[in-house]
Amino acid sequence: MPLPTPEGYRVMDEAGLRDLLAGVPEVAGQLGGDSAGWTIREVGDGNLNLVFIIEGPDGGICVKQALPYVRLVGEGWPLDLNRAFFEYRASVIQAEHCQGLVPQILHYDPKLFLIVMELLSPHIIMRRGMTEAVDYPNFVAQITDYLARSHYFTSDLALPAAKKKAMIAEFCPNTDLCKITEDLIFTHPYMVHDLNRWTSPQLDRWAEAWRNDDQLKLAISQLKQDFLSRAEALLHGDMHTGSIMVTRAETRVIDPEFAFVGPIGFDVGKLIGNLLLNYFCHDGHENRPGERDGYRAWVIETIQGVWHGFATKFVELWDGHRTGDAYPSDLLPDGSPALRQAQAAYMARLWNDTLRFAGASLTRRTLGLAHNADLERIEDPDRRAACEKRVLELSRDLLVNPGSYATIEQVTARAEALRARDGA
Amino acid sequence: MPLPTPEGYRVMDEAGLRDLLAGVPEVAGQLGGDSAGWTIREVGDGNLNLVFIIEGPDGGICVKQALPYVRLVGEGWPLDLNRAFFEYRASVIQAEHCQGLVPQILHYDPKLFLIVMELLSPHIIMRRGMTEAVDYPNFVAQITDYLARSHYFTSDLALPAAKKKAMIAEFCPNTDLCKITEDLIFTHPYMVHDLNRWTSPQLDRWAEAWRNDDQLKLAISQLKQDFLSRAEALLHGDMHTGSIMVTRAETRVIDPEFAFVGPIGFDVGKLIGNLLLNYFCHDGHENRPGERDGYRAWVIETIQGVWHGFATKFVELWDGHRTGDAYPSDLLPDGSPALRQAQAAYMARLWNDTLRFAGASLTRRTLGLAHNADLERIEDPDRRAACEKRVLELSRDLLVNPGSYATIEQVTARAEALRARDGA
Repeated sequence: MPLPTPEGYRVMDEAGLRDLLAGVPEVAGQLGGDSAGWTIREVGDGNLNLVFIIEGPDGGICVKQALPYVRLVGEGWPLDLNRAFFEYRASVIQAEHCQGLVPQILHYDPKLFLIVMELLSPHIIMRRGMTEAVDYPNFVAQITDYLARSHYFTSDLALPAAKKKAMIAEFCPNTDLCKITEDLIFTHPYMVHDLNRWTSPQLDRWAEAWRNDDQLKLAISQLKQDFLSRAEALLHGDMHTGSIMVTRAETRVIDPEFAFVGPIGFDVGKLIGNLLLNYFCHDGHENRPGERDGYRAWVIETIQGVWHGFATKFVELWDGHRTGDAYPSDLLPDGSPALRQAQAAYMARLWNDTLRFAGASLTRRTLGLAHNADLERIEDPDRRAACEKRVLELSRDLLVNPGSYATIEQVTARAEALRARDGA
Repeated sequence: MPLPTPEGYRVMDEAGLRDLLAGVPEVAGQLGGDSAGWTIREVGDGNLNLVFIIEGPDGGICVKQALPYVRLVGEGWPLDLNRAFFEYRASVIQAEHCQGLVPQILHYDPKLFLIVMELLSPHIIMRRGMTEAVDYPNFVAQITDYLARSHYFTSDLALPAAKKKAMIAEFCPNTDLCKITEDLIFTHPYMVHDLNRWTSPQLDRWAEAWRNDDQLKLAISQLKQDFLSRAEALLHGDMHTGSIMVTRAETRVIDPEFAFVGPIGFDVGKLIGNLLLNYFCHDGHENRPGERDGYRAWVIETIQGVWHGFATKFVELWDGHRTGDAYPSDLLPDGSPALRQAQAAYMARLWNDTLRFAGASLTRRTLGLAHNADLERIEDPDRRAACEKRVLELSRDLLVNPGSYATIEQVTARAEALRARDGA
């Protein structure tokens, strides 16, 4: 029996989509020619949704439709269709602040929970490129614009409280997707759970150690409380290299369906965590040891650049756009030592959050349900497990001892030291 | 020109109210007899609303109606009528958890923004009693039930995330009243502002010092950020001795129109701050020095009892009702050392918040718009200012150095030392 869906909803097929899009003038115009001649392909390789690419004589577009369940699992795992609405709304807000860094939204159909957006071509998912050791020279500059602007302009530093609270309220109902994060990142990997998986038997004892580590379980639980209760800014909510499409020139952040108002460090930390994962994966892909040393150096530079670029730009925006209700300039005048001190304390807390959320993302990708292609594509389980043990060791340290890392260079040095120690 | 109001709204007068209540069977039944015989008095002495007491042969009720402006100021300061709705909703939620500690709601009229509730009699506003040195032997036991239960059961410890977020969203629109707090507590007293007032000229140099104190302005700005962004539990939002009605036997918390989901320490700290204010006021009321030493000892005991009672009961509720999504028992089993550690860390942060919010409430009642009868009723400005200087000194220390207070006994000892030093 199919899951109940709201009136007017139907799962799109090629014919239905052709008719629908022909009726939306701005979309039909973009494709050009007669709708009968458009090519339509379903290309969704994600876990949740249908994704179509439609091409006409004048151009292409992308259509994303929510299914009433998790695509990867099927109807046994129902999932709120409204995630399409939240993605649409987050996209609109982010487009205001991050033009050119997110795909342009062309149309939203509220009954079909369907988004029509710009086709990104020849962009590919960044994780795929990074697994194959492709570098992206403009990535740091562009992603740090996105991170700084999307968070700053939706924080209390830029928004008056009434606007901020309207935004909080709008995204509060996106609970189904937040719940996935709460479970898969902050809970399951630290307990016995059917959905967990890991490289077995190589990591069996590590998984067991994680389940018995009180310090770690305390740290992840505190982080979960922060995730549940700290409404700092509109988050992407799933900010990893699988949610970024790139060419060597361009960066686009896609798929903000997990959007909600939460702690800024969650987005920044998740991205840094995923870059660290990539750093550790290359030992499993190299044909001869050291082959990817140059690429690893680029990844390290990128990790450092992401934090520094984000932090610098965030504070610059703060200096230039003091339009929110927090840290009022009547009390902390522009350029004053007191403002500098406030900024330093704010960024120090954000740094601590970033480290902990980065740590959480490393464990969930190794012992939880969803793993990363970076490591999954290492075929030899012994080689993979050797990389994953380093991932786990760094994960624990970031979660339990974030205070011992004063700088991002200390984090990358620790990652390098873990490889060096093992003679990787 | 009167302020625009929604269709159906009208300011209630005696005749209108009589008709309205006669048409609500459960209310008419409670009053008894014929509606023509009911006595109706407008008794509002608060700052914002109309308040009526209606009495009939079988009993009495209280009616509170929101005006579209701040009553104290007039139409020049418009204020959202929906505050009545938020008070109604907060009352319903609190009644679930704190039966007998809040007035029973009998009826809500959404068009008139009017709440009909139990008449509290012979209860009086606690602040009035405390200014006259009346002690309340059951207060600590009852208010700590209220504080622990109302906050615990609306926190992530008790609520699944989806329910908690629905509550957050429901109260997000209460921005007009939150804005009053943001301005009057966290901003105005630390800058030049028309609404500020203080005992002048005695405190002129203190007010100036406050405006030039970078550490203080940093601390209050960080606290404002916490108030704006930390959605921990449903707060009363205006938790002071003027929002509590008492007899020597009973305690009732009234007026939750400032309700929203925020940091728990705001309610607890505001109450402790107001009790500290009362402690300092008696030097201005005594006929001979030392006359109220016994009462001061009761106030000190009460302050200590409020913190200890709240903290103990909150942790007991946590042990007994682990129904929320935070700190899952799968990771931190009942009674485990890891759970104890999590609770200790949670309460330590709540303690730090409580100290800072208490400190903020001391300054706002001395240098900001709204002062407390405790001190305002000291007629001699020199005597009043002498008390207020001690209030301000403690305020600054709680805001800037909360870490130097490990226990509530250290806070009360500091208050006592301030009096002793001045030879009060």
